[in-house]
Amino acid sequence: MAKNYFTTCILGAFILDEQVRLVKHIPFGDIGQWKEKQAAEERVKKEFPASEPLPPEKQHVFLRLLARREYYPSFHLLNKELTKGQVRQNTGEDMLILQAVNAVDELSLSINRLISRLREWYALYNPEGERAMQDNGQFVQSVILQSKEELFKSLGIPSKNNMGISLGPVDVGIIQQLAKDIHALQDAKKRQEAYLEQLMKKICPNLTAIAGFLIGARLLEQAGSLKNLMEFPASTIQILGAEKALFRHMKTGAKSPRHGYIAHHPLIASAPQALHGKIARALADKMSLAVKMDYFKGKFIGDKLLEEVQRRFS
Amino acid sequence: MAKNYFTTCILGAFILDEQVRLVKHIPFGDIGQWKEKQAAEERVKKEFPASEPLPPEKQHVFLRLLARREYYPSFHLLNKELTKGQVRQNTGEDMLILQAVNAVDELSLSINRLISRLREWYALYNPEGERAMQDNGQFVQSVILQSKEELFKSLGIPSKNNMGISLGPVDVGIIQQLAKDIHALQDAKKRQEAYLEQLMKKICPNLTAIAGFLIGARLLEQAGSLKNLMEFPASTIQILGAEKALFRHMKTGAKSPRHGYIAHHPLIASAPQALHGKIARALADKMSLAVKMDYFKGKFIGDKLLEEVQRRFS
Repeated sequence: MAKNYFTTCILGAFILDEQVRLVKHIPFGDIGQWKEKQAAEERVKKEFPASEPLPPEKQHVFLRLLARREYYPSFHLLNKELTKGQVRQNTGEDMLILQAVNAVDELSLSINRLISRLREWYALYNPEGERAMQDNGQFVQSVILQSKEELFKSLGIPSKNNMGISLGPVDVGIIQQLAKDIHALQDAKKRQEAYLEQLMKKICPNLTAIAGFLIGARLLEQAGSLKNLMEFPASTIQILGAEKALFRHMKTGAKSPRHGYIAHHPLIASAPQALHGKIARALADKMSLAVKMDYFKGKFIGDKLLEEVQRRFS
Repeated sequence: MAKNYFTTCILGAFILDEQVRLVKHIPFGDIGQWKEKQAAEERVKKEFPASEPLPPEKQHVFLRLLARREYYPSFHLLNKELTKGQVRQNTGEDMLILQAVNAVDELSLSINRLISRLREWYALYNPEGERAMQDNGQFVQSVILQSKEELFKSLGIPSKNNMGISLGPVDVGIIQQLAKDIHALQDAKKRQEAYLEQLMKKICPNLTAIAGFLIGARLLEQAGSLKNLMEFPASTIQILGAEKALFRHMKTGAKSPRHGYIAHHPLIASAPQALHGKIARALADKMSLAVKMDYFKGKFIGDKLLEEVQRRFS
């Protein structure tokens, strides 16, 4: 009985004779069968008991055989399917975090720019009132709800002799409308933040417990994925988000940055300046541990890790 | 009878003796009286018939008299009131146009940035669908209204084997929410545009008739005020908004720009390339005329001006 070779590729199982000429081609209907090629090979072995795997030194002869034009359409189809599957698999849930935190940042930016616009516009009408309200949230609210006179009353400013021009109801209405639209955008931002927080608690509970959801999400966004962040040493996590200062340090020998996104952490923000570096280092240390727990789906130790840092600096 | 001098300043009317010493000070209660200082001077002349205006060469003596500390508070108060009045007067209705057109541009920018964000996010879930919808408005609408499966059906794409990851209802919901928020922002932009159009038709009907409200408003915004725009020659109006190209021309001798904001005018956009410069020049010419009519509250000739250009190039 003549000896046979067999081999599999994305197109199916191929049975070849000793001169590597095609004997039989059992095509794969879809990409699932290629993934379970072991099963296909078992079947081949049953049908051709005397066959053996194609030795590596004869692979190139087989490859020449595959170059036939008749195989092109199936190659195209199956490779596309394979790629689609791989793309799908590489899109993890951490990608949603990146999108959500970017959306939050984008909304913040839009809100801030529109508020400056609103301030400039409203200041034509009521410069004293615009000046008196430094807080953006309060400012938007009051433009929506209060007339110029009501505002002056509540601020205790005399309403006559103010510098603003007088405007008709349509002109005032459109300014108030812009304020309402900004307010809606602020609500949109809150919704996105709530979603981001929920997502962070689900995907990286440990990191979220120590860093808070916004700082945690920014770290993740900067790293690009949970896997990348997991592979970073604590020292990198500590200065993530301070790239500008880091490169200045490397180029000009200026002081190295003590903290990046971590700087906004309540433990650091409330501590005396001299301790900032120390606390940042301790926090980054625990965060690096927490991310590893999150990536490998370990148990929840985030609260304990945070407590340890808190105890050390209180 | 001794001769008297009299003079007025923001503090009131002053009657002085021949050595420029104070005889009497009739203070102005508010800034309105300073504006009608003629009336005050009449009163002084009645009370001191032998008085005459303070000659210029003695003004400096009088000024030294005004340096007394007791005048400081009234100086402060009245000058503040005067400034307020001037600020109020200098804020014309054309300032509202600048604000409105800036708001429209700001909203456009925010919408565009948020849509790119939405596209990136939605593409994780449904890359084929995101790709298929090039139009931003249609894209936002369809994210809000159609499920992934409905979308595939309407686009005629097979729904299985797509590259997107599968998401839970919460994750899909927040993407749809962002789309809704963007849609609300698009509505806000439409409202601002409607207001801007109405304002332009009211304040510069002639310019609006020729240029359209958006191009007209951009020209006004670039010029800074209706008065400035009125003082520009037609050649400046023609290239307003093409500052970059103009300075490149002046610095490197590159071609001078043929048109700035005017380039978006339907007459130019629909004409063959070779005619662009000619039409831009003709339009700018008529616009310059129209702005002058608007500034001096002349009659409405905008439609005739536009017709003249249309007739010439059709």
